[in-house]
Amino acid sequence: MDPYMIHTNGDGNLSPVLDVHVNINGKSSGLGKMKGRKARWSVKPSDMSDKTFNPIRAIVDSMKVKPNPNKAMISLSIGDPTVFGNLPTDSEVTQAMKDALDSGKYNGYAPSIGYLSSREEVASYFHCPEAPLEAKDVILTSGCSQAIELCLAVLANPGQNILIPRPGFSLYKTLAESMGIEVKLYNLLPEKSWEIDLKQLESLIDEKTACVIVNNPSNPCGSVFSKSHLQKILAVAARQCVPILADEIYGDMVFSDCKYEPLATLSTNVPILSCGGLAKRWLVPGWRLGWILIHDRRDIFGNEIRDGLVKLSQRILGPCTIVQGALKSILRRTPQEFYHNTLSFLKSNADLCYGALAAIPGLQPVRPSGAMYLMVGIEMEHFPEFENDVEFTERLVAEQSVHCLPATCFEYPNFFRVVITVPEVMMLEACSRIQEFCEQHYHCTEGSQEECDK
Amino acid sequence: MDPYMIHTNGDGNLSPVLDVHVNINGKSSGLGKMKGRKARWSVKPSDMSDKTFNPIRAIVDSMKVKPNPNKAMISLSIGDPTVFGNLPTDSEVTQAMKDALDSGKYNGYAPSIGYLSSREEVASYFHCPEAPLEAKDVILTSGCSQAIELCLAVLANPGQNILIPRPGFSLYKTLAESMGIEVKLYNLLPEKSWEIDLKQLESLIDEKTACVIVNNPSNPCGSVFSKSHLQKILAVAARQCVPILADEIYGDMVFSDCKYEPLATLSTNVPILSCGGLAKRWLVPGWRLGWILIHDRRDIFGNEIRDGLVKLSQRILGPCTIVQGALKSILRRTPQEFYHNTLSFLKSNADLCYGALAAIPGLQPVRPSGAMYLMVGIEMEHFPEFENDVEFTERLVAEQSVHCLPATCFEYPNFFRVVITVPEVMMLEACSRIQEFCEQHYHCTEGSQEECDK
Ligand SMILES: Cc1ncc(COP(=O)(O)O)c(C=O)c1O
Ligand SMILES: Cc1ncc(COP(=O)(O)O)c(C=O)c1O
Repeated sequence: MDPYMIHTNGDGNLSPVLDVHVNINGKSSGLGKMKGRKARWSVKPSDMSDKTFNPIRAIVDSMKVKPNPNKAMISLSIGDPTVFGNLPTDSEVTQAMKDALDSGKYNGYAPSIGYLSSREEVASYFHCPEAPLEAKDVILTSGCSQAIELCLAVLANPGQNILIPRPGFSLYKTLAESMGIEVKLYNLLPEKSWEIDLKQLESLIDEKTACVIVNNPSNPCGSVFSKSHLQKILAVAARQCVPILADEIYGDMVFSDCKYEPLATLSTNVPILSCGGLAKRWLVPGWRLGWILIHDRRDIFGNEIRDGLVKLSQRILGPCTIVQGALKSILRRTPQEFYHNTLSFLKSNADLCYGALAAIPGLQPVRPSGAMYLMVGIEMEHFPEFENDVEFTERLVAEQSVHCLPATCFEYPNFFRVVITVPEVMMLEACSRIQEFCEQHYHCTEGSQEECDK
Repeated sequence: MDPYMIHTNGDGNLSPVLDVHVNINGKSSGLGKMKGRKARWSVKPSDMSDKTFNPIRAIVDSMKVKPNPNKAMISLSIGDPTVFGNLPTDSEVTQAMKDALDSGKYNGYAPSIGYLSSREEVASYFHCPEAPLEAKDVILTSGCSQAIELCLAVLANPGQNILIPRPGFSLYKTLAESMGIEVKLYNLLPEKSWEIDLKQLESLIDEKTACVIVNNPSNPCGSVFSKSHLQKILAVAARQCVPILADEIYGDMVFSDCKYEPLATLSTNVPILSCGGLAKRWLVPGWRLGWILIHDRRDIFGNEIRDGLVKLSQRILGPCTIVQGALKSILRRTPQEFYHNTLSFLKSNADLCYGALAAIPGLQPVRPSGAMYLMVGIEMEHFPEFENDVEFTERLVAEQSVHCLPATCFEYPNFFRVVITVPEVMMLEACSRIQEFCEQHYHCTEGSQEECDK
């Protein structure tokens, strides 16, 4: 007989406490260790997974509305520049991957923060005299998303808070709240080209503030901060001694009439973790290669934060080694025309879209200066049929088969976000459908008859 | 004048409480919100990063010993089959990646749990009548490491515990402790080919036990559980109503004389999350493609755990899309000879290594049946110069330039682990150096003169 045998007395499904007796060498004895283990199945998801809330998914999935079957769907909702096939990556980028594959050198494990050689390439690509970088200042991650996750995980404890932009990319809140970190929203001002309300920002900082996230250029606004505005943000951080997490995934994606300034180049004292990656500028978001650039010239993060990031990177190890192996060529060989062409396409689409929507009564688009988005204010008083931006965009799908994200996804009601990476004809068609939609639903408000007569 | 201006009174570096006055429209007022924000820099890593402890790194990094300059280094320490170049992946695998690149279809974002088509391929690859799988049961992850992370994150709350094998892969503890989950170690018995001490396992289960991790085939043991042993493990889980996280990354990597049984094929009622990936069997650990297979025929996990996994996957999104795009061909086209050749190489090296080490007085290798490792017991009483396995392996590097991992890394002192993926000549050379080392340091213990005379 197997000396290890268990008898359960009675029906475990009825009794919350397991009454077990183990028969060891013939002697039967109550198993003291099994204090109250329930002999029935009850597997519940953790609090962390319960707290992991993606507002875009929640809002979009609950928009259970069918597009108009007579109109082809135009989706202006996904921040993925590759979906329409009009913005392929450069052939050098693809070739770099093939070369990495053929070399046979990039199949094994890399160090969890990435190959030294790849980190050197990233460092030298972003190095500049005002913000020097070496390989030791670079951590490669599984997309910019993981870069942000690691930064938050190293900087903040549960119970602390971080400051994030409103409107802003929803991942900040999703990640923070899943980790028990509180988020406080600072305001961006549409009338000031989405500059930060610095006073309000500073008023939110308290002794539990672990960092401020600054996203420039911005998703969802398409805004690009001026040098002087960035300097003012840095002044707040310096005064309050709060480090900055700079989400610069759209770095350098700015239209020709303005200039992108990496935040770290404007400060010598504020410690900054700058997050970026290949996703947007190189148009390969699926490849999941991101990075953290550690700017810490005053040694405020010190080795502790650096070591913390390294340790956290060992949890799941770094990004795909083939992409790491291709990084050198991707950064060195992608021709300037490629970046240039992407940007002039985006600029032209942004102009088209802004122009078309600005002419529609009831809409207030804000002109973007970079990234791939444009925010549009809805004068809700003129659309009394709709309760809010969610309903507005829902009905836009139902009637015109045009899908825009309601800015409630970005904590900014009564706006919607347009993605401007779609082919020009689709952009135009979408705008004219939005126009038709608005014309059909526009109502004059009392006291504004004048406006309506125009 | 900028209406937004801040004066600090006194030296913020001296005062722990910031004394600020904001000059708003000429009126100066204390800023109540800034309760006690310290006006000096103090950025500390989070508790989570402090708690993220990788014993292999800690132990190996503290082994600050130089190899013998007269002998070329032979590293038997890293579980990376690619490092010596003798085990390249199959050309079909590389070709599948190039095809995915050329198609241009896999550059954008995939769903966070992976492309439906890729999940379908994984499901049909692992589907069998005893453990049916569909795409909805598959979640693609950034390596098996992230698969394990997601499973733990969804199943356990801080304060709960999980049961993990001793000796066992160190990541389980690293991940669990970083999340505030307690680990309890159940014993594997070397004298029983590393089977689980089931009684002790069951005695560890309590009302806070979130899951049992079963790693089969095993790192570091190279052991493969029999069907009947797996059934007994399942019986414990069923009786105690504890779900199983099956780490089956070495699935099917077993030598011809035994059979690998996926745990889920042996149970109809225990809910099982099986983790795996391309790393080992397809010899591309750097590519970071893993998966979770959800086996839940009694609907015990239910939608809640499934949804929890989906939500958690949205934190950093899935694995590299090029590898996802290549999955279909990788799973369908890799020739049987490839798997066969890898295994016969491993088997032959295992035999060589086992045979050589078994003949060395003072060492007790345990014959492996699969995976890529072999554990060797050190009869410490015969090596009185060395305090433990760490010192033993340290001196082995210093004198013989052979690097093995002390099994303290796996919570199992007085053993060391040998990686058997090295080229045959290196394996032989390493064994003969280990022999020389042992002969030089072997001491007879009192009362065992007999043995020594042999
Ligand atoms: C502002 C911002 N940060 C980060 C990310 C995430 O980038 P990745 O795809 O590299 O994880 C995005 C993606 O849309 C983004 O818009
Ligand atoms: C038992 C075990 N599980 C999981 C892993 C991690 O696999 P991956 O590289 O796919 O993250 C390893 C890697 O060595 C392992 O040995």
